Amino acid sequence: MTVAAPSKVNLAEKLHSFTDQWSPKIVASYNGNDIMVVRVEGEFVWHSHPDTDDFFLVIDGELDIELRDRTVSLGPGELFVVPTGVEHRPVASRGEVKLLLIEPRGTPNTGDEATAAIKVEI
Amino acid sequence: MTVAAPSKVNLAEKLHSFTDQWSPKIVASYNGNDIMVVRVEGEFVWHSHPDTDDFFLVIDGELDIELRDRTVSLGPGELFVVPTGVEHRPVASRGEVKLLLIEPRGTPNTGDEATAAIKVEI
Repeated sequence: MTVAAPSKVNLAEKLHSFTDQWSPKIVASYNGNDIMVVRVEGEFVWHSHPDTDDFFLVIDGELDIELRDRTVSLGPGELFVVPTGVEHRPVASRGEVKLLLIEPRGTPNTGDEATAAIKVEI
Repeated sequence: MTVAAPSKVNLAEKLHSFTDQWSPKIVASYNGNDIMVVRVEGEFVWHSHPDTDDFFLVIDGELDIELRDRTVSLGPGELFVVPTGVEHRPVASRGEVKLLLIEPRGTPNTGDEATAAIKVEI
C-alpha cells in the first residue's frame, strides 16, 4: 500500500467543496483522530460519547452547544471541548455554521452507530 | 478536588493575553492532549517527535514548516499535521505567527525534555 505524504489543508477550500449538512468530512489525521470539517444548520440530537471528549471549533457562523445545565455559545475562532460522557446538543439556529471537529476515528457523531453519519475523506 | 466545568475558549483573546514567543499556552484539553496557542517568529530548531503526530493550525500570519524534502507553507485557516518521527523545523520569516497546536500532554516542543519550553495553562 502506498501512503501519500500528507498535504496542508485549507479549511475554507475544504468547506467550499461540499454543501451537505451534518455530514462530517475527514480532512486530516492526528494520532488516530479524525480532523473533520462540517456544515450544520438547525438542531442536532441530544447525545453523549461514553469514551471520548468532543472538540468543536467554529470557523464561520454561530453555534450553541446546549448542555443539560447551560448553553455554550460559540462564534468564529471560539472552541469548546465537551467532556466525555456529557450530554450535549449542537444547535445552529442563526444560519449555517462551519466547524472543525476532532474525534477518535470511528466515533459515531450521534453517539450511536445505528444513527451515525458516514464520515468520508475529502 | 474540584474540577471546574470547562469554558469556551476565544483564541484571539487568549493570544492577546500574552506576548512571549515560542512558549505554548494550554487553553483546553482533549482526551489527554493539550490544545495550545503560541506566538512564534524566526526559526525554531530541527526536531521530531518519536511517539506523536504534531498538529499546526495557523490563526494569523504565515508559517513555513520545513521538512527535509520540502517546505509546507501555511496561511490563516490552514493546517498541517507532521507525522510521527518526521523531522521538521517551523520557520516564521515574514513576521509573527499565531498558531493553534495539539500535542499529547507532556510532549516536549523541541522533541527533547532538556530544551523544551514549559507549557502553562492560561
